[in-house]
Amino acid sequence: MATLSPERSLPLSPAARASELADTSGVASGPSRGDARRYTDLPDPFPLYLGGVLHKAVIAYETWGELNQQRDNAVLLFTGLSPSAHARSSAADPSPGWWQDMIGPGSALDTSKLFVVCVNSLGSAFGSTSPLSIDPTTDKPYRIDFPELSVEDIARGGYEVLRSLGVTRAHTVIGPSLGGIVVLAYAALFPGAARNLVSISGTAAASPFAIALRSIQREAILRDPDFKDGHYTDEHPPATGMRIARKLGMMTYRSAGEWAQRFGREPAKEDLRDGSPFGPEFAIQSYLELHARRFVRAFDPNCYLYLSRAMDRFDLARHGASIPAVLQRSGVENALVIGVESDMLFSIAEQRQLATAFTAAGVNTRFAPLDCIEGHDSFLIDIPRFGAQISAFLNEAG
Amino acid sequence: MATLSPERSLPLSPAARASELADTSGVASGPSRGDARRYTDLPDPFPLYLGGVLHKAVIAYETWGELNQQRDNAVLLFTGLSPSAHARSSAADPSPGWWQDMIGPGSALDTSKLFVVCVNSLGSAFGSTSPLSIDPTTDKPYRIDFPELSVEDIARGGYEVLRSLGVTRAHTVIGPSLGGIVVLAYAALFPGAARNLVSISGTAAASPFAIALRSIQREAILRDPDFKDGHYTDEHPPATGMRIARKLGMMTYRSAGEWAQRFGREPAKEDLRDGSPFGPEFAIQSYLELHARRFVRAFDPNCYLYLSRAMDRFDLARHGASIPAVLQRSGVENALVIGVESDMLFSIAEQRQLATAFTAAGVNTRFAPLDCIEGHDSFLIDIPRFGAQISAFLNEAG
Repeated sequence: MATLSPERSLPLSPAARASELADTSGVASGPSRGDARRYTDLPDPFPLYLGGVLHKAVIAYETWGELNQQRDNAVLLFTGLSPSAHARSSAADPSPGWWQDMIGPGSALDTSKLFVVCVNSLGSAFGSTSPLSIDPTTDKPYRIDFPELSVEDIARGGYEVLRSLGVTRAHTVIGPSLGGIVVLAYAALFPGAARNLVSISGTAAASPFAIALRSIQREAILRDPDFKDGHYTDEHPPATGMRIARKLGMMTYRSAGEWAQRFGREPAKEDLRDGSPFGPEFAIQSYLELHARRFVRAFDPNCYLYLSRAMDRFDLARHGASIPAVLQRSGVENALVIGVESDMLFSIAEQRQLATAFTAAGVNTRFAPLDCIEGHDSFLIDIPRFGAQISAFLNEAG
Repeated sequence: MATLSPERSLPLSPAARASELADTSGVASGPSRGDARRYTDLPDPFPLYLGGVLHKAVIAYETWGELNQQRDNAVLLFTGLSPSAHARSSAADPSPGWWQDMIGPGSALDTSKLFVVCVNSLGSAFGSTSPLSIDPTTDKPYRIDFPELSVEDIARGGYEVLRSLGVTRAHTVIGPSLGGIVVLAYAALFPGAARNLVSISGTAAASPFAIALRSIQREAILRDPDFKDGHYTDEHPPATGMRIARKLGMMTYRSAGEWAQRFGREPAKEDLRDGSPFGPEFAIQSYLELHARRFVRAFDPNCYLYLSRAMDRFDLARHGASIPAVLQRSGVENALVIGVESDMLFSIAEQRQLATAFTAAGVNTRFAPLDCIEGHDSFLIDIPRFGAQISAFLNEAG
């Protein structure tokens, strides 16, 4: 796959896009060499949480390990906002996945024992039905006429995948970032459908700071003249809006402390010092620039808007009399909540509150506040520490 | 003055703009009822730090209190990025200033004893020479052909104002935010010209996080099609870019903790729920929207770009063998460094390092880390705590 550049005018295939985004930390993940995706047809019609409906909708997923005869070793993995279902390499697609070292024989999600299923979120364009899909009622892509999407719908998409595989109760439902929110919707919507639950750097309801950040990202896209009310062309996507959204994302996915260590006040690489007025001067600007260039054509703007807004709207408390009441009803036996002290987007206070609510619900709860310096994205980088927490939890849960 | 709206098409007068921006925390400061500005002609030619030159340049300033016969009671106040020299009301301009309660008889900057001079930064359009000014060599506004601006030039502008008033050594040089950086340039450039120095929520050199934020703000303006390479019209300024820059500013001027307390997940006010796709849904979005609308036509985009980049570039260490060496040479006798724990833009670690450097330079140093929850903007809001620190410092300094 060719290196992406802002000049590239052909849209990428979903598989190429997935590969490009597999590592949201921005380390190029190498060429995609195949396609390991399978698909589950959602019930038709598929009712959405806020009242809309989808027809002939599908969820793309990938799996690693084997489902046992009792069908009680399935781990359902939800992703962050941008990755695909390609969490790990496989024979069908040997390119590294976005959580490559977390999944596999002997890894924290040990595929010699567990059957790991990663789903591409409903609304994301890496195989699942999304604003890029053809609306069978009009034979045109939904684009901005896609019905309102909720975190609850993403949870239901994963639930239907497990159901199609004959799994009625997941061994574990796990997810980081957006995935750490989706697992809570899963617990709320499907009592008894998860024995263990792992919420990583998620939240029971978005903070005003996170809503502010995401609404500014969305505004940059919505106000880009090339957005054209959602009817942009492949040749002229709202590149400025997507660039700004991505740079803001990178700014809040990491931490000021990490950047101070990593970049300090190093000058920008010469090849990015384009001589334009107010062009990049510092290495941190080059870093953001490279991420922005890679993202612009790798993620669909409408999909981004739908997924981003869904994160703002989710509120676990609305699923019952109180958050502990919702969690008690879920039937989850063991919960692990992981958060990172340097996460500015999903603060450690939010994960602590969540862990407290699980405990109040009578769930056997483990809370792991980690002092990684990589901020929100630490789960992609500090695999040893996150892996140790997940392993210990799963061993204890049995 | 009418309420600003994005539809407003007439540019504001500099005085009206100053009033609009006086309180960067966004609380409307009421109509401006006069003009208390005085002007100092800068030497012609006025050489800039990075090699450019200005002709017939001026600095606007306002004063409170009286200069004593010994001319040793002058307090030179530099502002943050957006305010004017109107720090306090006066007979000539009774509208409240941006630091209204910090200055006055009996206030922390006690005008019964001190002669307070607040300067409008060189490059800012509230009276001082800026990209909006007419270039006397072309008879056209400089706009983006304004020469490269440095924090050092802003410091020199203030120095020339004091010189024009017959003050060779300031009692105190003080500033918050950008002003907290300018005071350091002042100390580096003019040894012996300041007896006491107060740096509030500033830094000796911008962190990569702050550079990232500001470079994204600038990119939003630079890439707005209405920017037109700096030659935008009054009728069509780069409003989208300025809106996004302002919203990002507000996001980093406050703190996630303050917003959680203040807004939580309150819904947006009805009058801002415009029914557009992906329009505001939460109160925090309304808050950002109001700030953005107020800012768009109140601050000139080119001025913003020049001042913003100057903040990225400043590096106190470049003025000598080391920061302590620079500070020792400055002749400053007493220094007060104030920082706020919840400041995400200018971290408390930066102010702590600065205080340590002052101490290493043999300067009598007071470091005040405050645990205000209002983030970077705390100096505008928590007047009692900031005022107490400044009062105690000035009393001690004598």
